[in-house]
This record gives sequence, C-alpha cells and structure tokens, in this order.
Amino acid sequence: MMDAFFSPGSVAIAGASKSLMKLGNVPIDNLLRFGYQGRIVPLNPDGGEIMGLRAYPSLEDVEGSVDLAVAVIPRENICSFLDSCGRAGVRNAIITAAGFADAGEVGASLQRDVEAAAKRNSVRIMGPNSIGTINTAVGFVTSIITLDAMPSGPVSVVAQSGLFAAGFARWMSSSQCYGLAKVACLGNKADISEMDVLAYLEDDPATGVVALHTEGVEDGRSFVDLVARVSLCKPVVVVKPGSSEAGRTAAQSHTGALAGSHEVFMGALAQTGAVPVGDFEEMFDCAKAFAYCPLPAGNRLGVVSVTGAGCSLAADACEARGLTVPPLSRESLRYATEGLPAWASFNNPADIWAAIMAEGNAGAYYKLLHAMASQDDIDMLLAVFTIAPQFEFDVAGVIDRIRVEFPEKPVLTTVLWGASDDSRRWFESLEGARIPMYPSIERAVAAAGALNRYSSWLRRQR
Amino acid sequence: MMDAFFSPGSVAIAGASKSLMKLGNVPIDNLLRFGYQGRIVPLNPDGGEIMGLRAYPSLEDVEGSVDLAVAVIPRENICSFLDSCGRAGVRNAIITAAGFADAGEVGASLQRDVEAAAKRNSVRIMGPNSIGTINTAVGFVTSIITLDAMPSGPVSVVAQSGLFAAGFARWMSSSQCYGLAKVACLGNKADISEMDVLAYLEDDPATGVVALHTEGVEDGRSFVDLVARVSLCKPVVVVKPGSSEAGRTAAQSHTGALAGSHEVFMGALAQTGAVPVGDFEEMFDCAKAFAYCPLPAGNRLGVVSVTGAGCSLAADACEARGLTVPPLSRESLRYATEGLPAWASFNNPADIWAAIMAEGNAGAYYKLLHAMASQDDIDMLLAVFTIAPQFEFDVAGVIDRIRVEFPEKPVLTTVLWGASDDSRRWFESLEGARIPMYPSIERAVAAAGALNRYSSWLRRQR
Repeated sequence: MMDAFFSPGSVAIAGASKSLMKLGNVPIDNLLRFGYQGRIVPLNPDGGEIMGLRAYPSLEDVEGSVDLAVAVIPRENICSFLDSCGRAGVRNAIITAAGFADAGEVGASLQRDVEAAAKRNSVRIMGPNSIGTINTAVGFVTSIITLDAMPSGPVSVVAQSGLFAAGFARWMSSSQCYGLAKVACLGNKADISEMDVLAYLEDDPATGVVALHTEGVEDGRSFVDLVARVSLCKPVVVVKPGSSEAGRTAAQSHTGALAGSHEVFMGALAQTGAVPVGDFEEMFDCAKAFAYCPLPAGNRLGVVSVTGAGCSLAADACEARGLTVPPLSRESLRYATEGLPAWASFNNPADIWAAIMAEGNAGAYYKLLHAMASQDDIDMLLAVFTIAPQFEFDVAGVIDRIRVEFPEKPVLTTVLWGASDDSRRWFESLEGARIPMYPSIERAVAAAGALNRYSSWLRRQR
Repeated sequence: MMDAFFSPGSVAIAGASKSLMKLGNVPIDNLLRFGYQGRIVPLNPDGGEIMGLRAYPSLEDVEGSVDLAVAVIPRENICSFLDSCGRAGVRNAIITAAGFADAGEVGASLQRDVEAAAKRNSVRIMGPNSIGTINTAVGFVTSIITLDAMPSGPVSVVAQSGLFAAGFARWMSSSQCYGLAKVACLGNKADISEMDVLAYLEDDPATGVVALHTEGVEDGRSFVDLVARVSLCKPVVVVKPGSSEAGRTAAQSHTGALAGSHEVFMGALAQTGAVPVGDFEEMFDCAKAFAYCPLPAGNRLGVVSVTGAGCSLAADACEARGLTVPPLSRESLRYATEGLPAWASFNNPADIWAAIMAEGNAGAYYKLLHAMASQDDIDMLLAVFTIAPQFEFDVAGVIDRIRVEFPEKPVLTTVLWGASDDSRRWFESLEGARIPMYPSIERAVAAAGALNRYSSWLRRQR
C-alpha cells in the first residue's frame, strides 16, 4: 500500500488549473522537473490540456488505473472527492487542505467526516494538512511548493511538518551532498501515520537512516516497539517537540496531535536505539553523520584542533554528550612530536598550532590524527579547522588518508568559519568526499555522541 | 596605555622579511590592506626595504617614536627584544610566539623571564601567544593571519583565542553586517588581561556590545565587579569553557589559564548583567541581537510562523530560555482573522499557513506581527520563515514597517532554510536592514532570551 504513495505508476492531481499560478499545478510542475516517468493525470472540471498533459474532468473519466490521487482542493470538497476515488477505484489519496484537526472543534469534526468518507470508499489517506511525499529514486514528488530535483542518498524523512518538502528540500537540493531517499510529510495523520511509514522504511533498501519529526503518537507502546525494531537495522533520529506546556498546545493546534506525556514518551524512546535530538539542525547533523560514517566501537574521541580554545570547548562538549577524551599514549606522543621543537607537547584534545607553525597544516594534522587513530582506546576522531590563506591545504586528502588507514573509525570535522567563499569551497571538498563538516565543535560532538549512542545500543542487542 | 594597542600612531613589526611568505610580513600586508594611516616600521637585521617600507635593523635605529612593537619572532629572542624596547623607549609590545605558559613547566618558567624583562624595561605586553588587536575605525590590525578590512560596527571582542583575528575575522568581513569595533586576542595574558581591555572598552564610544572569551581570570572578585560595572553601560556576552575537568585541563594547556572553580565563576557572573553563552555561535548570535535591537521591556514573546512545527519548537525554546508566550488578546484575534475563512484561528505562537494561503505572505505576516506588537503584554517578536518561490515577498519591508510602528519592540527572525542563493539573498535583505536573522528557532529564542536577561538586570539596577 505505501508503495502507491512513494512509487505510483500513475498519479492524478485534483486542483490543477489552466492558469499556471495555481497551487494545484505545482506538483505537476515538480513531477516534470524531477523527471518522473509515471503517468501524470491533471484533474480539472473543464478537461482540456494542462501543462502539456491531457486533463480529465474527474477520476471516473480517466481510462486506466490511477495509483494515487493528490487533492489540492478546498476542505469543503474533500469528502465528495473521496467518494469519487471510491467510484473510480482509486485506493490512495494525499489531502493537502488544512482546516481540520488543526482548526478547532469544527475542523476536528470535519476531519472525522473525511475519515468516514475514506473508510467507506476504501481509500487510504495521507493528511489532511499534508504536502505528501518525495521519492528521489523515481523522481516522484507531490509537494505544493516548487522544488528542484535532489540527490539520492540514504536519508529518509518522516515528519508531520511540511517544511521537509518545502524550504528544507530546497536547501537539500541546492547545498547538501548526502542525499535523500524518501520524504513523507504526514500532516494531521487522520489515517497514515509514522507507524505505517516507519514500517515501510524498515524494509526499504534505499533508506539507511530515518529522520523522524512527530508531534505525538496515538499508541505510544506500539510506536516504541516499532522504533526499537527498526533501530535494529537502521538508526532513527527523532525530534519530538512538547517539552513545554505551550509547546504541546501548539502541537495540538498544528496537527491535532495528542498531548500525552512528553516525559513518558521520551523515557520510553530512550529504551530503544532511537537518537533523540533537540531541533532540526541537530536532526540533519546526526543524520549526516550516520550517512557518512561507520559506527564507532566506543565512546572515546580524539580531538585535533588548530585552536587551543577549541580544545576546552570540545572537552566540555564531550562530557555533556557522554564521550571521553583518553590521554595520548607514549607512542602517540613520540610519533607526534618527532621533528618538533623540544617544548612541543600534546594532550587530547590536541592543540596543534605549534605543530602547524613547524611543519605546515597537512603534516601536523596527519601526524596527530594518525597518532590518535593508532590508539586502540580511541574510537573516533574530530579535526577542528579554521580557514585563512595560512591554513589552506588538501584537507579532504589528509582526512581521506586517515580513513583509508583506519576505515573503522569515524572522522568528523568542524570548520570554525572563514570567508564565505572559502567556507563553501571547504564544505564542497570535505562533504564531496563524504567527510561530515560542522560549523561548531558542539554540533560535531553532538553528532559523534549520536553515533556512539546508537552504536552502543546496537552492541547491547547482540 | 591601551590606546597604544588599538590606535598607535606608529607600529614596528619585528620578524618582517624580504621574503613575502614569512609570518612577520603578514601584519604589514594586513595594515596596508586595512588602510592604516599611521607609520609602519618593519624591523629586519638587514634593514633595506620591505613591502615598499623602509626597514630598520632594530628599534633603536628608528628615528621618531614607536608606540607599539609587534614581535613576530621565536620565543628565544623575546627577552632581548624587550630589552631593545626598553633602550628605544618603546612602552608597548605584542608577543605572538607560543611555547610559554601554554607549554609545560619549562615554558612557564620562560614566561616568567619574559614578565621580568617586560617589567625591568617598563614595557606593557599583550601575550605571549597573542595575535593582538584589530581596530576597524583606524584600520589597525596586528594579526599574523591574512585578513580583509571589515565593516565598523558596535561589537568588540576580548578573547584569549586567536580565532577572532583569524577565521572568525574573515567570516565577519566577508559575510556579516553588524561590524566590529575592536578585537583583542590576549593569548597567555602574562601582563594585559581582560581586566585592562574591559575597562578600556567601558569608556570606548565605538563599542556598544562586548563579546568576551576567557579561559579563567586571576582575580575572580575584581573581574566580576568590573563586568557588573561595564554591564551598566553595555552588555557583556561571555563564553567561559571549563564545565568539564578535561575542558579545564585543556584551557590550562592552551593559555596557562588558572583552573579555579568553574561553578563559582559562573555563579558569580550570574549576579552581574553578563550574558553567559555556551559557544561561539551563540556568542555572535547574542552580540548581533544587541547590535541590532532595542532592549525589550519584558520577557514576553510573540511568535509568527509559516510552519506549525515551528510553533511548538518555539514554545519549548521559550520555556528553556525564561521567556513566555502570552495568548492573543480578543482585539488581536479579531484584527488578525479579518477577511480569513471562518475557521481560521490563531494562538501565540501563531501558525499562519492558512493566512498565507488566503492573503499572501506580506499581508499575513504584517497582520499577525502588528496584532501581537499592539498588545501591551507582548515585548518582542519572532517571525519564522522558510524560503521557496511560493514564500517570496519583501520581507525586510514588512518587518521594517512593524519596527517603525513599534520602535521599542525587538523583532527577530528565523529562516528555516531554502536554496543557498535564496538564503543568501534573504540574509542580505534582512541583515542589511539590521534585522537579525537566525538559522534556527532555538538560536533566535536564545538571542531573545539574552536581550531579556540583560534588559531585566539593567532595570533592576535602577
């Protein structure tokens, strides 16, 4: 069933108009731009041609089957549209209209009418208040926000918010390298919920990491069980607002979310392999780490930093995230100080300013990272940089050399800013080589902490 | 005395070389690029000409006075250089070399020698392990990292880390709008400490906000007293690493910082108007809010968001930062829902997706922001956006209209990402109009929390 929402052979769009500017035309425009190869069927009372495609007055007029209908029409017309789905044998629909459980008691009552209409017509629905799905593998997209095709990759997103098929998707396609597999923006979840999509993604070979945003689930116990099961094969990163009373009220207004106890929910989630995060930045930060890095064997981090200030910030962040910074071994120290002034010494975190002055950036970073990675009691590495003409070198080349020598150890990077063009260039060099780059030490350490959290949970399951 | 470090009439650079690639040439190169109008005196044993300037074998050979000497020379030569300062009557020096209190017991002992040499020659020193100062008003800069001239503005930085005259300064000059007044990177603080610079900045009319990074102070009581006094006329944003044992050890290795009790320090600081922050991102986030915004009359925030998910995240963040989100008044609600579908309703935080669908972005944002700003019990505003073709409008124009109508209420913005070029354009439009833009709701709310924290402390002092 979920296949129809991500890989339909044919999709009908209700609300398409001959005027190019209507919301209902945007999904068609997106589908064409994404290169979707299935059949696209615009629905419009007048029929005719829309965006070069033959339009039909209604679903019942379409010859051949329609796997999915996307209703970009006002809320008043949803029930009759579902009846038409029933008559035409269309079994799956996405409903974009808002004004249901997100809009007070009257809206909630209307949503119950929609649920009843869906049931009596045997139609599974996503929404209302949903902007639907993206599947990069087949160029499928239902968003009513103009998007550009985006790179395929291992990250799939299940969210109540439409942001993930709006601004976030545009950010992803214009600047991120790891790529998306599938996105589902569920809205009010009158029928299809994160339960359905999570179970689907569990078996989806294209999905390596799941990023989940939920404002509350109907059956906490089943949800937690499912997350624990999915976590056995892929990490699930979770944003769940509602730590405050006002936040829970807002969630309820947004999608009619069930309030429930935030503490109980988070407590139960903590028993699974799920990785709870505080906000969307951290959600993508952690998803990226999972997309790029192997899982570490433990919680011990080696830090190499151009800035001494970064060393203390990194150590503080490690403590806050359950990571440790083991001391350098005597062998490491001997290896790392060879050829340096006699007074040069290092700890972990290692301040390598003096080493850079003595032997340049590439040599200094390589030596310290190599020394640390050689230690059995160091499981992952963080390299901290800043960008200026004096600090230019083949950074991706050096990190890659370490990764080839120590393929089992995750290497993360923080670049503490530089001129905007330089920062972009570094980002492309590092992330182009699938080396995760973060704009602050705290965010990199949070991502390392997520790798460790999931990895240690997974080890305990065996 | 501090004037000589920020606005010297003449500066000598020891370690300048005829080979353009030496570290000692970088400050000269920077000074020329910044358009510094004072006298630049390269020092080189061979004399001759360096970068178009007459070089002198030593300070004693220079005719006329030298207000400040910058020593870009190895640590072994520092004491004799200070003797030469003494003979030439040069009273102020910046020492860039590392390998002192940042390098074990031998280094610490060498630092004591340097202190003694400075004393006997009556030379005030910044450093060692310092890359010195920037003063945008007169184009003065001593950094050994290549920098571009940067906009003048109200933010001054006092830091132990050299980052602020390295990558961070390059980030600032290439992409930030609020601008810097003065920067001091103090390194090991053998002599000049944050005490001296804070006292100087207290009376500096160009400085409206101080951002301070310290790894530990010598006399906690005096420091706290000074911060409390400076806070009476301008906010002081403070990053102090060392919440972890490993973090304190790292700070000690970095600049020979005194360990002390982090908790006692932070507790004492909390009694002042200082704004403690967790990392460098938050430091600049808060400094920017102070640079752009009036101080709010209270802790009550109105939030207008294109995304419902943002509403719950904002409410959660407010609670975490000591802010409240008062309900909309009946008048506000009437004003805001005029002309909208009957089911449209709003809370605070307000999800305005439906309003945008009904009357466009500019109308919807203006209406809700205006309604909230009109409430006496709302002290500041946060507008949350995402970027896509469907959400394009004159965002700065709308916010500016609100600011003109309610000049006493801070307005902050969050843009939840979009395509990279679009994001840059929005940033330039908003921040060009001195409207602070943040990449996450949490960071915007943290900045609003900082405005409130300082403002409420200041009110209590009256």
